[in-house]
Amino acid sequence: MEFLQGVNRKEVKEISELSKCVGETVKVNGAIHTIRHMGAVTFVVLRKREGLLQCVYNENADFAVSILQEADTILVEGVVTLDEKAPGGIEILMTSVVILSEPAETMPIPIHKWKMNMALETNLNLRPISLRNIRERAKFRIQEGIVRGFRDFLYAEGFTEIHTPKIGSKGAEGGANIFKLDYFHQPAILEQSPQFYKQMMVGVFDRVFETAPVFRAEKHNTKRHLNEYTSLDFEMGYIDGFEDIMAMETGALQNIMKVLAKDYQKELNILQVTLPNVDKIPCVRFDTAKELVAEKYNRTIRNPYDLEPEEEVLIGQYFKEEFDADFVFVTYYPSKKRPFYAMDDPKDPTFTLSFDCLFRGMEITTGGQRIHDYHKLIDKIKRRGMTEEGMDHYLMAFKHGMPPHGGLGIGLERLTMKLLGEENVRETTLFPRDLNRLEP
Amino acid sequence: MEFLQGVNRKEVKEISELSKCVGETVKVNGAIHTIRHMGAVTFVVLRKREGLLQCVYNENADFAVSILQEADTILVEGVVTLDEKAPGGIEILMTSVVILSEPAETMPIPIHKWKMNMALETNLNLRPISLRNIRERAKFRIQEGIVRGFRDFLYAEGFTEIHTPKIGSKGAEGGANIFKLDYFHQPAILEQSPQFYKQMMVGVFDRVFETAPVFRAEKHNTKRHLNEYTSLDFEMGYIDGFEDIMAMETGALQNIMKVLAKDYQKELNILQVTLPNVDKIPCVRFDTAKELVAEKYNRTIRNPYDLEPEEEVLIGQYFKEEFDADFVFVTYYPSKKRPFYAMDDPKDPTFTLSFDCLFRGMEITTGGQRIHDYHKLIDKIKRRGMTEEGMDHYLMAFKHGMPPHGGLGIGLERLTMKLLGEENVRETTLFPRDLNRLEP
Repeated sequence: MEFLQGVNRKEVKEISELSKCVGETVKVNGAIHTIRHMGAVTFVVLRKREGLLQCVYNENADFAVSILQEADTILVEGVVTLDEKAPGGIEILMTSVVILSEPAETMPIPIHKWKMNMALETNLNLRPISLRNIRERAKFRIQEGIVRGFRDFLYAEGFTEIHTPKIGSKGAEGGANIFKLDYFHQPAILEQSPQFYKQMMVGVFDRVFETAPVFRAEKHNTKRHLNEYTSLDFEMGYIDGFEDIMAMETGALQNIMKVLAKDYQKELNILQVTLPNVDKIPCVRFDTAKELVAEKYNRTIRNPYDLEPEEEVLIGQYFKEEFDADFVFVTYYPSKKRPFYAMDDPKDPTFTLSFDCLFRGMEITTGGQRIHDYHKLIDKIKRRGMTEEGMDHYLMAFKHGMPPHGGLGIGLERLTMKLLGEENVRETTLFPRDLNRLEP
Repeated sequence: MEFLQGVNRKEVKEISELSKCVGETVKVNGAIHTIRHMGAVTFVVLRKREGLLQCVYNENADFAVSILQEADTILVEGVVTLDEKAPGGIEILMTSVVILSEPAETMPIPIHKWKMNMALETNLNLRPISLRNIRERAKFRIQEGIVRGFRDFLYAEGFTEIHTPKIGSKGAEGGANIFKLDYFHQPAILEQSPQFYKQMMVGVFDRVFETAPVFRAEKHNTKRHLNEYTSLDFEMGYIDGFEDIMAMETGALQNIMKVLAKDYQKELNILQVTLPNVDKIPCVRFDTAKELVAEKYNRTIRNPYDLEPEEEVLIGQYFKEEFDADFVFVTYYPSKKRPFYAMDDPKDPTFTLSFDCLFRGMEITTGGQRIHDYHKLIDKIKRRGMTEEGMDHYLMAFKHGMPPHGGLGIGLERLTMKLLGEENVRETTLFPRDLNRLEP
C-alpha cells in the first residue's frame, strides 16, 4: 500500500532559496517571461511565483537557445551566480533545459514590459494573460495582504469567522438593487450584504467577521462601483458606543499596514507604494465636515443629507491638508440615508450613531451601531412603512435578546484601489463584474 | 479634533483574564444563559464568547435577583473567586448589575441544556437562537479552525489567495446543475466552482487558493448534499504528477489538525472529538478499491465506473480496519465520470490522473491533474461533443502557455461533519441551503 505523508521538499529551488546556493548547480522552473538576445549571451527571464529570475544562456549550454520561446514553461539546470545587474542580484548560468509546456500562439500583449500601457478595457478583456504582468500581479498580492491583516487582527481580538449564505429569500436592506434568481421554483435573491446574518451571529459568538462576496444590482457605471465585490465585514457586541467600532477598524487598518510592511515589501516596491500613516484617524461629524469643506473650498451645500462624491474628495483633501491624514471617519450620518436597523442618535434622531470611513477622499467603509431592542426595531420598521415579512428569523434573534452591538463592511477592492493610487476600482479587481462585464 | 488610535483595552474582563484577578473586584458582561436557584444562592450563568461564566448571587448583592431573566445581557460587578465546581474553576460573586438589554419573549427552546434533543428541522428553523447552545456554537468554532489551518498552510507553501467572481456567464463543468439569474438582461449563472478562474490564475501566481461559496442546483435531497457550500480550493503549477496535489492536501490536513489541537481544544472537549491521525494517508486505485471491498464484504460490483455511497462507506471501513486510517485517497477515476479538463492517464485513457479523498467513508475532496496543453484541451472538448462557446477566456490562458498543474476542492461543511461525527451535513452548516430551505 502506498501512503501520502505530506509535502515532500523538491529538488527544484525557489528564488528565495538561491542565495544559499551560489556556485552550486541547481534546478529551477518557471514560465519564460521574456528572452533578450545580447550578442554572445541571451537572457532568458523566468517568471516564478516569487518574482523574476534571470537565466543566462551562452555556448556552454547543451542546447540551442532557439528551441526556447516566450511563454514556454521550462525546467532549467544551471549554476547559481552573483550578478549585481540581475534582478535580485542572482542569475543562473544555464547548462540544460527541459521544456514542460509550450504556448499555441504568441502573446498578443507585451506582458513582460514594466508598464503595458494599454486601455483598461483591453487589460480586462485579456485578464487571463494581462495579469501575468509583474505590476498587475503585485496588486493582487497586496490585496491578499490586506485580507490577511484584517483576518489576523480580528482572530486576535476574539472574533469568530463565519460563512453565511449568499442565496437568500429577502435582501438585508431591501430596495431594488438586488439580483433575483429562481431557486427551485421559489423566488430568491443574492445577498447584498451579510448584515442580517452577522447580526444574528452576534447573539451567538459576540464578535464575528466574514470576508466574502456581496452582490449589488446597482445600475451605476462609475469608476468606483462594482456589481460584485469582496466585503470585509465584522460585527461586535457589548459595545459602549459606535466609537468602539471605529476603534476596531483603526486597529484593523493598523494591522493591515503592519502585515503589508512586513510581508509584502517586494510588491509595494514594484508599485512604488508608500503605506499611509494610520497611527490616528480623525473623526468628524457629517454636518461639520460639510461645513468645513464648504467654507474652506468656497462651496455651497446643496444636499444637507448626503455627501456628493466631490464632497468626499474635498473632505479627504481637507484632512490631508490640515492633519496629514489619509483616513477620516465621518460620523452621525442622517437617519434618512441609513437603513432601518441603524441606531438613531437619542439626542437627535434625524442623525444616526453611524459612520463612513473615507480613504483619500473615497468611502471605503460604512458602519455603525445597530438597534438591539426588539420593540425599537419593530417601531422603526413600522415608521419606515416597511413590512416585517421575510424578516422573521432576523427578528427572532432580537426577540430573544441581543446585546448592544454594531459593525461595518469594508470594500476590499476600493481599499486596494486607494492604497495603490489607482483611478478605477476595476484595476484592483481580479475579474470585475459591472453593468457591461460578465466575462472573463 | 477627535482621533481614533486603535483598540482601547476596556475595564471589562474576558474569561481568560479572570484567573489573574482572583480576589479582585472586576466587571464582566455577557448574556444570561441560565439562572439556577439553589436555596440561599442563585447561579447566574453568563454566556460569553470564550465560554460560560458562573456568577453567584447572594444577599450581599445590591439588587434583587428577580430583576434578572434568561437572555438578558448584563454588566456584572463582582469578586473573582476560585471554585472547583464552577466551569473553568472560577466564579464571580455578584455585587451589582446593569441590565444592558432584555428579550421581548422567553426562549422557546432549552438552549442552556447540554444537549437540546430537538429534531434537526426545528434546530434549523430556530437557527438564530439554537446556535446559542454551547455545543452548537462549538461546531462552528471548529469550522473556523479548519479554514485557518487550511489557509495558513497554503500561505506558508507559497500560495496566493484569490477572490474570483461568483456570477459568471457559463459554468465551469457545464451541465444542468447550475443556478441561473438575470444579469442586467443578460443570462448569467452562479459559479458551481472557481475551477476556470483558479486554473487561469495558475498562469499568474503558480499557486493559488480560495475559500469561498459555490452554488450547485442539484436536486439531491440527501444528508450529504447542500445547494450552497464553502469550498476550500487550491490549484498549483509545476507539478510532477497528481501525487503532488495529494501530498499538499495531506500537508493541509496535518496542519488543520495541528491548529485544532493547539487553539480549539476547548471546543473539541465540548464535543468530545478525538482528532484523526493524518501522519500518513493510504492511496488506492479506484478499480482496486472496488475489488477490495467487493471481496472483503462479499459485494458484487454493479457499476465499474462510479462509486456508490455505500461503497465509499465500505472503502472507509476497509482502510480503518486494515490500516487504522480515517482518510483514503482513491485514485485514477474513470474518465467518463470526470470533467473534460481532467488529464487522462497516458497509459490508459479510460482513467484519469485524478483522485477523491474519502474521510470516514465519505468523499470530501475531488482533485487531480488538469490538461495544460491547448491542443489537447481543444481535442478533448471536441471528443466530448462540447462547444468552446463561452470558454474563450479560459482557453486564452492555455493558448498562451500554462505549466503542468492540478488542484482540488474540499467541501468545508462535509469535512466538519465527518470530523465531528455528525450524520447530516446540515448540522455543520451555519445556515444551510437545500431543496426546501432558503431560510433563515
